[in-house]
Amino acid sequence: MSDRIGYLGPAGTFTEQAALLYAPDAVMTPYPTITAVGSAVSENVVDVGVVPIENSLEGSVTFTLDLLIAQSGLSIRNEVVIPITHYLVSAPGVEARSVEVIYSHPQALAQCRNYLGSRFPEVPREASLSTAAAVADMQNSRVPAAAICPQRATEIYDVQILDQGIEDNTANQTRFVVLAHADHAPTGHDRTSICFSFTVDRPGNLYNTIGEFASRNINLVKIESRPTKQELGRYIFLIDCEGHRHQPEVAAALEGLRRRTDMLKILGSYPFWEPRAE
Amino acid sequence: MSDRIGYLGPAGTFTEQAALLYAPDAVMTPYPTITAVGSAVSENVVDVGVVPIENSLEGSVTFTLDLLIAQSGLSIRNEVVIPITHYLVSAPGVEARSVEVIYSHPQALAQCRNYLGSRFPEVPREASLSTAAAVADMQNSRVPAAAICPQRATEIYDVQILDQGIEDNTANQTRFVVLAHADHAPTGHDRTSICFSFTVDRPGNLYNTIGEFASRNINLVKIESRPTKQELGRYIFLIDCEGHRHQPEVAAALEGLRRRTDMLKILGSYPFWEPRAE
Repeated sequence: MSDRIGYLGPAGTFTEQAALLYAPDAVMTPYPTITAVGSAVSENVVDVGVVPIENSLEGSVTFTLDLLIAQSGLSIRNEVVIPITHYLVSAPGVEARSVEVIYSHPQALAQCRNYLGSRFPEVPREASLSTAAAVADMQNSRVPAAAICPQRATEIYDVQILDQGIEDNTANQTRFVVLAHADHAPTGHDRTSICFSFTVDRPGNLYNTIGEFASRNINLVKIESRPTKQELGRYIFLIDCEGHRHQPEVAAALEGLRRRTDMLKILGSYPFWEPRAE
Repeated sequence: MSDRIGYLGPAGTFTEQAALLYAPDAVMTPYPTITAVGSAVSENVVDVGVVPIENSLEGSVTFTLDLLIAQSGLSIRNEVVIPITHYLVSAPGVEARSVEVIYSHPQALAQCRNYLGSRFPEVPREASLSTAAAVADMQNSRVPAAAICPQRATEIYDVQILDQGIEDNTANQTRFVVLAHADHAPTGHDRTSICFSFTVDRPGNLYNTIGEFASRNINLVKIESRPTKQELGRYIFLIDCEGHRHQPEVAAALEGLRRRTDMLKILGSYPFWEPRAE
């Protein structure tokens, strides 16, 4: 198990919560951006880095996709999936009925829109830079305030929990990836992430490419496209498939892809996340 | 040609610039969100709505994709592509060397990072809600200020142009869609946008589906996935293909898709954008 973990900070966010679930005893260092986490791994300042890659409501975190595409020497070693459960907190002694402003990251405010609309219809919302920063904004408020934050923030800050599970859609989950210099050894329950592109646009390009998986009965979990940043309408495709790159049929499909594409990068094979018994 | 256009405001943004290029003589109404533009079209408050859907550097505008997936009665009638050229402006009489703060939307600031770093290394940047709001922030500044904004903002506000074309990557383009109740009649130079999903995840699902296009030699321009918002790992796929849905081979491919998918929505067929001679 790794000793030093870098994660997208600050402390008290869902990413810290995911990093702690991955390695409860590691030394944790927050970084201000996803790019900074990637650099810390590349430069061996930390052993692994934890960043969000996908949320079940919002979709992909494009900064993380672009980092994986662009930065060499970074592999996905693991994934971690956590439910996004929002807490409503206040300074100790501040009751819900006296709250005059509610702080959180705009995405968290949006995800609790129905709850806030029915319980706090008249209370203005203010944007914070992160769900953890919302707690600091609440603490510094000159009027009685509340914040929407993750469970982790309720553990490390001196707050009173007014309510929990206040998100409108309970199917809210975020998937994080653990970045390292090398990916994971086969476990028998693995996924593989790759990206590729074509120089020339031809009918059937993508069809023939994903045929390498279909003809071997390998299930595709996800397909995504990102701009090449050179020309509108040219894309880099990202695919997650089932299986490990060391399994013969996956290795053969990847070999087929290498012949059919102009750029192929294997982002890593890693065990897929299975929720732990609590 | 339509008379009343709703667009993602405020006035002076790239979206207004795209709307004016589409219909210079229309009555223009800005709306505060992409959802509000969609509703204005649905409720016949405007004839068509103009919203951004994709940028060559940032990728898809997910709010627009989710609106097209979720809202019934909205079709894509046209697309408009414009180059994203950033202007640096100040209040009349304020020279570049006296500027003490630079305002813009965070994305515009990021897209001019190299320029700002070499020309204004010591000048702090401040975030504004839009590139048009940056001009207002600049005008209200208590110290000499500059703003990064679109050409359109330089036409409607009383500003002095300090520099132009200050974006780091000149391949910066944004594609907008024109939303209406019905799509466009065939022109011979068309594209068709669709979205679809599968209830059960099977190897080859996506392969067999896009085979309906490949077997008819229809080129796929774009493929994208969005979360279903019900469960992590389940997606709605969005595809742009060449051709109009009234062309026999495209119609046959869509008929094949209807049999292979559990949900298929045709978002519209429309002429692809060809830059006008200036």
